[in-house]
Amino acid sequence: MVTAAEQFLKAHDARLHDRVRISAGGRSHEGRVMPAHRFSGDHVVVLKLANGYNIGVSCEGAELELLERAPAAPEATAADAPLPSDLPPLTVLGTGGTIASYVDYQTGAVHPAKSAAEIVAAVKGLAEIASIRAEALLSLASEDMRPDDWSAIAKRVSELHAEGGAGVVIGHGTDTMAYTAAALAFQLPVLQAPVVLTGSQRSSDRPSSDAHLNLAGAARAALTDLGEVAIAMHSSSSDDGVAIWRGTRARKAHSSRRDAFTAPNGGRLGTAGDAVEFSTEYRPVADETQLEAGFDRDVALVWSHPALTAGDWEAATAGKRGVIVAGTGLGHVGSHLHAAVRATARDAVVAMTTQCLGGSTNLNVYRNGRELGEAGVIEAGDTLPETALVKLMWLLKHRPDSAAEGMGENLVGELGSRRFLD
Amino acid sequence: MVTAAEQFLKAHDARLHDRVRISAGGRSHEGRVMPAHRFSGDHVVVLKLANGYNIGVSCEGAELELLERAPAAPEATAADAPLPSDLPPLTVLGTGGTIASYVDYQTGAVHPAKSAAEIVAAVKGLAEIASIRAEALLSLASEDMRPDDWSAIAKRVSELHAEGGAGVVIGHGTDTMAYTAAALAFQLPVLQAPVVLTGSQRSSDRPSSDAHLNLAGAARAALTDLGEVAIAMHSSSSDDGVAIWRGTRARKAHSSRRDAFTAPNGGRLGTAGDAVEFSTEYRPVADETQLEAGFDRDVALVWSHPALTAGDWEAATAGKRGVIVAGTGLGHVGSHLHAAVRATARDAVVAMTTQCLGGSTNLNVYRNGRELGEAGVIEAGDTLPETALVKLMWLLKHRPDSAAEGMGENLVGELGSRRFLD
Repeated sequence: MVTAAEQFLKAHDARLHDRVRISAGGRSHEGRVMPAHRFSGDHVVVLKLANGYNIGVSCEGAELELLERAPAAPEATAADAPLPSDLPPLTVLGTGGTIASYVDYQTGAVHPAKSAAEIVAAVKGLAEIASIRAEALLSLASEDMRPDDWSAIAKRVSELHAEGGAGVVIGHGTDTMAYTAAALAFQLPVLQAPVVLTGSQRSSDRPSSDAHLNLAGAARAALTDLGEVAIAMHSSSSDDGVAIWRGTRARKAHSSRRDAFTAPNGGRLGTAGDAVEFSTEYRPVADETQLEAGFDRDVALVWSHPALTAGDWEAATAGKRGVIVAGTGLGHVGSHLHAAVRATARDAVVAMTTQCLGGSTNLNVYRNGRELGEAGVIEAGDTLPETALVKLMWLLKHRPDSAAEGMGENLVGELGSRRFLD
Repeated sequence: MVTAAEQFLKAHDARLHDRVRISAGGRSHEGRVMPAHRFSGDHVVVLKLANGYNIGVSCEGAELELLERAPAAPEATAADAPLPSDLPPLTVLGTGGTIASYVDYQTGAVHPAKSAAEIVAAVKGLAEIASIRAEALLSLASEDMRPDDWSAIAKRVSELHAEGGAGVVIGHGTDTMAYTAAALAFQLPVLQAPVVLTGSQRSSDRPSSDAHLNLAGAARAALTDLGEVAIAMHSSSSDDGVAIWRGTRARKAHSSRRDAFTAPNGGRLGTAGDAVEFSTEYRPVADETQLEAGFDRDVALVWSHPALTAGDWEAATAGKRGVIVAGTGLGHVGSHLHAAVRATARDAVVAMTTQCLGGSTNLNVYRNGRELGEAGVIEAGDTLPETALVKLMWLLKHRPDSAAEGMGENLVGELGSRRFLD
């Protein structure tokens, strides 16, 4: 079957790897034409941008300008090869959570670990799009997921990628899914196949359960060329689609709604319906998955508030190697805390985030902020406090000598480049 | 001038204090017709509902059904009296913050306290709607506002109300404005005139400053019959209006946008443009302002996360009389913390909120939650963690013997009645 995107390219005499500009509605994108991935929308052209990221661009009503032909005789890559006619492999890795605990909330019984396979079997249409293997790695309530579990998941993903190279969907409780997603993103900074977390806000035996839709959406996202750790969850309170979130940018922002996840500072990569539509740039898959597993756990997260005392600060941070502060506004704490913060920053990495969650820190606007900067407090910019905590834990383990500098660098999409002061 | 609302009432032969039903667009409200307040919209009929709250209902395209005539010969009340032809009094109380610090960010100099009066003088049109008196009570950066300052502001508001009974606008830094708004709401549970906090995200000497629009909107809101502590701030990133937020429900959700405030669980009372439109029920002013000032400061706010240890918990909560937990999801912490939480809950009030910020706690859904409930953890429902902290500090001071029960009661609009589990 010839897709609308293929017809569009042919009509404009554009071929694979040609550099083109596609324009529509006042916006244009320049890049090299990439092979469509499975579940690209019918009308989506995938472009590799100059910065190495990919983007899906709709050809509906668009103009195409041919900028440069593909280099002569490009090497054939795996991505160029036609899709095999048999179904692509996909692993569903169970770790626990509501998606795997469909009687627990009534009886208190812990559900057996085979539930991942059961749920896969129950999801309509899943068996038609991929050759699915289900594996129960862990069976933990979301709130019981600890840093060692983050490492175990990353290692298993790395093994699975090495064995078969296929996408991995991770069933996970929603409470701490964003923490785990960030943890996987830092531990697996380069991916050869997608890693997509999903879960459910309603047990899968309830009519309103979101488990099936979420799992199907996650599976589709995991069959694309997305080289980032993502979260796939309901995009609205109705059943009309699944949003794909950048793992380092999402947070659970509602305790019970099915569309619980959001990203205050951007990070919605796209939507997985019958097709997967990427609405922003994303890092594509690479040749080989890289693993740097493990975390330093000597960290604290301090939420600043008007009743916080210097004694509270000292109790929370004593002996810690890293401290994430969720400060007010642009990254402030009361000036009565400055001496204590200064003392901590002499021996530990102290990084500032904003408890607003939306927007960025900026310690240069007000005097209190400048004093914190002079005391050695690092700005985490628009990184979410939760993600900043995971990032600092990872840096202290793997880049102990440059952890402070690392907090100011964008490693896997967790940090934006501007401070949002329009 | 006869307003559209007055024409509408007259056309339906409805008079002051009649009980009526007004229906439009499939919605209807029943209540007694109240006098319009200054800055009621031209087409807004104010109804007092059976629960004592007021609501503004638009008469545009509406039907009116007369349910019951007003009681015979009702006592004339102050609210019935015609508005005096001279301008109503209004006090603008300066406490500091960007709204009063318009050179600080460039020079580092602390701006003199007379700035409140200066800014009032500079706000176009303000002098035409009220007889304004400006007073500099404090001159503090928002992040330096402490619980004692909350008490000082509440006491001064109470005095101002006792002296003249007029509305009070409080200029305040935005960083901790929501904490202060909650603190005033608990300390001033009954109001004889509005108390409206406002501030700015841009210094008032910058072209993009929001100080003037916010102050004008706050002043209009403070001339209504709103008997709740509110926050008035830009409703969008353009200059098209000021949102009025319930003080116990709002939080600063962006570090730099002008429309920084939001209320994850409802709490937008209305909008202040040329007219004030209330879009939800609100408590009307009463005869006399009540003051219960002061806070217990022996409290902790613990943000749960996967790396939090029992030792961290113990360090943060040692010797505290109250602990607010920002748990994951419906109100969970890792089960490795349960023993420590149980020990704390024996001597202190431990109340659970959700770090999602949106939605409610519910400790009855999962086993880990039930265990926390059995350990004595109180549910704070859909109260924001920041508001719950202020509430607990107030309860421990003024209702020490029933503080735990108080956390489960809605005192001043901070707690919804349902758990959002559809």
